[in-house]
Amino acid sequence: MVLYKYDNMAILIKNVLLEGKKRNIYIKGNLIAAISEAGNNKEAEFVIDGKDKAAIPGLFNAHTHAAMTLLRGYADDMQLQEWLSTKIWPIEERMTEEDVYWGTKLACLEMIKSGTVFFNDMYWHWRGSVRAVMESGIRAALSAVFIDGFDEGRAKEQMKRNETLYEESKNLPERIIFMLGPHAIYTVSEESLCWVRDFAEEHDLLVHIHLSETEREVRECVEVYGMRPVEFLDSIGFLSPRTIAPHCVHLSRKEIEILKKRDVKIVHTPVSNMKLASGRMPYEELKWAGLRSNIALGTDGCASNNNLDMFEEMKIASLFQKAFSGDTTSMPAEEAFALATRNAAKMFRLNSGTIAKGKLADVVLLDLKQVKLVPNHNLISNIVYSANGSCVDTVICDGRILMEDRKVEGEEEIKKKAERVAYELVNRNSP
Amino acid sequence: MVLYKYDNMAILIKNVLLEGKKRNIYIKGNLIAAISEAGNNKEAEFVIDGKDKAAIPGLFNAHTHAAMTLLRGYADDMQLQEWLSTKIWPIEERMTEEDVYWGTKLACLEMIKSGTVFFNDMYWHWRGSVRAVMESGIRAALSAVFIDGFDEGRAKEQMKRNETLYEESKNLPERIIFMLGPHAIYTVSEESLCWVRDFAEEHDLLVHIHLSETEREVRECVEVYGMRPVEFLDSIGFLSPRTIAPHCVHLSRKEIEILKKRDVKIVHTPVSNMKLASGRMPYEELKWAGLRSNIALGTDGCASNNNLDMFEEMKIASLFQKAFSGDTTSMPAEEAFALATRNAAKMFRLNSGTIAKGKLADVVLLDLKQVKLVPNHNLISNIVYSANGSCVDTVICDGRILMEDRKVEGEEEIKKKAERVAYELVNRNSP
Repeated sequence: MVLYKYDNMAILIKNVLLEGKKRNIYIKGNLIAAISEAGNNKEAEFVIDGKDKAAIPGLFNAHTHAAMTLLRGYADDMQLQEWLSTKIWPIEERMTEEDVYWGTKLACLEMIKSGTVFFNDMYWHWRGSVRAVMESGIRAALSAVFIDGFDEGRAKEQMKRNETLYEESKNLPERIIFMLGPHAIYTVSEESLCWVRDFAEEHDLLVHIHLSETEREVRECVEVYGMRPVEFLDSIGFLSPRTIAPHCVHLSRKEIEILKKRDVKIVHTPVSNMKLASGRMPYEELKWAGLRSNIALGTDGCASNNNLDMFEEMKIASLFQKAFSGDTTSMPAEEAFALATRNAAKMFRLNSGTIAKGKLADVVLLDLKQVKLVPNHNLISNIVYSANGSCVDTVICDGRILMEDRKVEGEEEIKKKAERVAYELVNRNSP
Repeated sequence: MVLYKYDNMAILIKNVLLEGKKRNIYIKGNLIAAISEAGNNKEAEFVIDGKDKAAIPGLFNAHTHAAMTLLRGYADDMQLQEWLSTKIWPIEERMTEEDVYWGTKLACLEMIKSGTVFFNDMYWHWRGSVRAVMESGIRAALSAVFIDGFDEGRAKEQMKRNETLYEESKNLPERIIFMLGPHAIYTVSEESLCWVRDFAEEHDLLVHIHLSETEREVRECVEVYGMRPVEFLDSIGFLSPRTIAPHCVHLSRKEIEILKKRDVKIVHTPVSNMKLASGRMPYEELKWAGLRSNIALGTDGCASNNNLDMFEEMKIASLFQKAFSGDTTSMPAEEAFALATRNAAKMFRLNSGTIAKGKLADVVLLDLKQVKLVPNHNLISNIVYSANGSCVDTVICDGRILMEDRKVEGEEEIKKKAERVAYELVNRNSP
């Protein structure tokens, strides 16, 4: 089975349920070459039987800190500041590139096993993440955490480092996107934000920045800059259609208008926002403002979720919006599904997110015999409200089979090694 | 494998992780006969290798309408009243005992596959549910829906029917508990509620009643009775330690005091309350009032959830409370786990909910090699915040192995038949 073995092979998925009809899906190279009625079988080097399976586009996780799988369950149910300063930050400080490599390997494995074909990451030791993604076969947009702590020396270092990484990234396969990752307005100086703005524009790069996650962030921004976070970023010309902003929980009406005007992309992170009691992204309001297709969905890191299951994230996104708005029709299943597929693909400028001829071959097969998918009155409803990642049977990303019959190559070794790395990391003495 | 095959066999679970230590668990009949250090192996007729597994008590689903699995995904994202009157009620009206039997079979299968060993049900065609539970091997408290629509004739019918069913229930195995199921204060007359109160007291029966689920229920109660729902029920002496009340979303301080005074049991149903935008049960307030161990957790029916996965329910319960209270320390993992295990066992007067010598043998083994459970810094945290039902490997209920290595006897037939019944049901003409 699996990874790399079928590279460059033509794949035929035979007789699979696709949007309510039985279809054959032909994959050639990394593209969907044709979709035809079931029965008219062409030749293919490799055939997957689609009986009792449904084909859906692979899922996109639009905000992660992948290597934090190492800290899954390490510290929960704490006050936010205490959690960060006594648990998360000290450990991140002693993380090595090797730790990040194994944590990201574990994350990629978890994502593949739950039908995710892409993730948008911001983390330390960028090269560790790159190695893991190279090996896993998954797509990713990878940014190094850019934090200068308002220190000029650190700022210079970060700029130089990003220039170097950007050069390195030119040798990477297309499925890895280099992004800039200025952490947030409260950790990055205005000068550095301006540098990011210019460098991103010059090289047409996407920019990943945490935005308006907590009330404290808004309050401190008003204190320091005399403006709310979105207003501040707009005042320095930072916002553009290439800006990808996770959270966006605390937004004034004026800020929503700015986000629309600048065509900013937003990532909803419901589980993390609930677990950290940050508040709720105003989905309906953003929709009304015309930003509906600008919104994607992300899990955030495993320290604040604690998994990377995008099926769960879709369900909780919809529940969260319904519960807070008091409106049972808020974020219907179709919209939650769009958040995790086509909206995200558009956001990352990928020809993916739907299954159609000419699209990238990012295809997930669901096992319709899983009890959670029985009966199948409405597949999208079952996907969003009943399924979880364990309903995924097969994952094809960029034309490669990464999982078949729930088996991923090297899975046992990855789990064993990552677990060892995780225990060693939390027990390691500070440097 | 599986069901009934190992009846009355002594079972040894060897070398399993139990509360952080490697243990042997011996099961004899339907009880846990001994727990000893791993290594000191006694004899047993049947041995389960506990390597890479953790033993936890089986989960309790304290509020369901099990046969509604047939309507999973049939109608979502609608206004509550439209949903009930155009989708749910017309179909329930044409359900037969055979439909309920297959729907409950499917529900039992789903629950076993996700580590649930008990459910508290209220539904139509009680005998259909009983047959399904008899065959599945799971525990259940089963009540027939008691609705009189404030009609004297229907009330008499319902009383007679419950007397008959109660008599029938005396022949059932101990793992099936007969309960009374007055639907709610807005569907059952005061006279009938008084009859339920007396019949339950006379025969020491538990009583299952939806309570304070929606604002409308509260408003109408005040209009009709001049009191809020809990006050009204208390005014007729209805509330007792045997009252099991799902939802309890809209409670005044005075009502919380009454619930405490009467030692009423409460079932939190977070997913259903969020999906139907009903509001949030005030968990922290109930805890402060001394009701912490009186609260259990339920999924509600599959039409408003849309699955029966208690792992998911624990996570969402905790997230819901954190998000609404703004307090990241609200409902920590340990408490969510207690809601789904020992609190519920106490509520239903079952010697279960923990793993200890002399307790009922309701034991679930988790597969620690599932990627969601790696690394294992804190098992309870992983269970509540990361796992889902697919992490369950083995389910033992009442001393019987209902699932081993994720295989349940008769699974394929149940899914196939229930699916057929579901499609036929929604397409059937009204009677």
